[in-house]
Amino acid sequence: MKLSPPTSPGESLANALARLRSLVDARLAVLVGVPGDGEPVKAAMHVAATSPGKRLRPALTLLVVEAFGGAAADHVDAACTVELVHASSLVLDDLPCMDDADERRGRPALHRQCGEAVAVLAAFALLARAQALLPGALAAARVAPAHRSAFASRLAGVVEAMCRGQALDLELPRTADLALLERVHSQKTGALFELAAELGAVVAGVSGDHLEALLSYARNLGLAFQVTDDLLDVTGDAAALGKPIGRDAALGRATFVSVFGVEGAASLRDELLDVASRALAPLGPRTALLRELTDHVRHRTA
Amino acid sequence: MKLSPPTSPGESLANALARLRSLVDARLAVLVGVPGDGEPVKAAMHVAATSPGKRLRPALTLLVVEAFGGAAADHVDAACTVELVHASSLVLDDLPCMDDADERRGRPALHRQCGEAVAVLAAFALLARAQALLPGALAAARVAPAHRSAFASRLAGVVEAMCRGQALDLELPRTADLALLERVHSQKTGALFELAAELGAVVAGVSGDHLEALLSYARNLGLAFQVTDDLLDVTGDAAALGKPIGRDAALGRATFVSVFGVEGAASLRDELLDVASRALAPLGPRTALLRELTDHVRHRTA
Repeated sequence: MKLSPPTSPGESLANALARLRSLVDARLAVLVGVPGDGEPVKAAMHVAATSPGKRLRPALTLLVVEAFGGAAADHVDAACTVELVHASSLVLDDLPCMDDADERRGRPALHRQCGEAVAVLAAFALLARAQALLPGALAAARVAPAHRSAFASRLAGVVEAMCRGQALDLELPRTADLALLERVHSQKTGALFELAAELGAVVAGVSGDHLEALLSYARNLGLAFQVTDDLLDVTGDAAALGKPIGRDAALGRATFVSVFGVEGAASLRDELLDVASRALAPLGPRTALLRELTDHVRHRTA
Repeated sequence: MKLSPPTSPGESLANALARLRSLVDARLAVLVGVPGDGEPVKAAMHVAATSPGKRLRPALTLLVVEAFGGAAADHVDAACTVELVHASSLVLDDLPCMDDADERRGRPALHRQCGEAVAVLAAFALLARAQALLPGALAAARVAPAHRSAFASRLAGVVEAMCRGQALDLELPRTADLALLERVHSQKTGALFELAAELGAVVAGVSGDHLEALLSYARNLGLAFQVTDDLLDVTGDAAALGKPIGRDAALGRATFVSVFGVEGAASLRDELLDVASRALAPLGPRTALLRELTDHVRHRTA
């Protein structure tokens, strides 16, 4: 497929997402390298980091960069930080002691490919790699040194929030209400979306009200993404999703759909996406693709 | 117990280790905070980071700092970075899919206290916290910004080495030879000892030949520490160790003792400690306590 050049005026969102995904995938492949023989952890890291995915979170980072005049190619390590955190969290989510999922992205889950021990160790090493990327990515963007240390703590805080959200999700009572679901998924999913946008903003030199608007957008987009996840587990197509559907019900898990029904969850999704979209209004036309991303999440099938 | 003031001339190693352990423990307690109700991951992080231990690795960092005229209290976060990486690795080591250990430090292993999912998530969050501490610790020591980014990668490389070493250890053939055992344990144990010394050196402004000597010392000390671990699993006292002995044999694991016998392993330990001690010779009398630490490892019972 021939891709448009970066940030061409009027570029479609589909083109931009494909372009940014290529950029991220190429860099991820370099970052994790080619594993040698007798290197099970490296081989597992490679699988986890390079298995085909939407790369929506790193794309969010780079769409923010481009919206504010930055070059995606200059900030791909910031985006890869986000994606490596995400990749490592997926390995943990699938473990027998968590969601006990056999499939991910149309392939066996990592622990089904290489055993539980190696999968856990690979997730650990990927997280370490993600965090190590950050200082250099911020330095390259000329973020002030003091701000860089603060951002390392911010990343750790997001990782911790994801871990807390996952632990709470595993224990969610069937009687969960909106406040509880929102609290769990703001941590489990929303926090990394927010960080993805924040990193894009920080490397592009965005701060103040514009940064706040982007964070509000990302928080609501991330939560809406989780609602669509729950919807797709009921209404989606297993082949498109690359994993079986009906897992949440099988696990007896409280989800936005189990609590509000399909229509209620769809309304909530739309409401969250409207809030996300409205948050961008003060930022003007440069955020057109970010606004389009809300429709992408609304209609996603994978 | 009344402790001598820091770096008093002629302070005993026992006193210095107790003093530095207190310093590290006090800071760890602050870093992980007091978990609230309904915060299983935070509670598990607290247990993992504050359960009583020798704190040998962070003490190594701070002994190096003091040997070169620094104040331990100024660099305790560098030491805590090392200890949090260590604490998180112990949680993983004990998991059912790894060593399947029920006890650690005289208490149930973390996954026996709070379940496997929460234990894995707590280990993950602790690693994130460890890495986040580093930039600030290096900045406080006025390490140059470029060096700080490089050190973030260095820490990630050590975490990855530990993960690779652990994966190889789980698959070690009973026919392992010295070269293979050394390769596995240089990664699994030696790498973090080396990093502990390196961090102490870097925050104290030590470089060049002196740094190289400290690294050689720490590498050999760490390997000797692992040999004593294998020895104590055969000859040690379960109550002193806080965990049952005979686990290696029960798991059919190749160890320095299974390969070389008790006497062979003891000789190897002594040889490694002699090499460690000799590496310090060019650094003069200021490394007296570091040299004494080799005897401490030789005679340790816990």
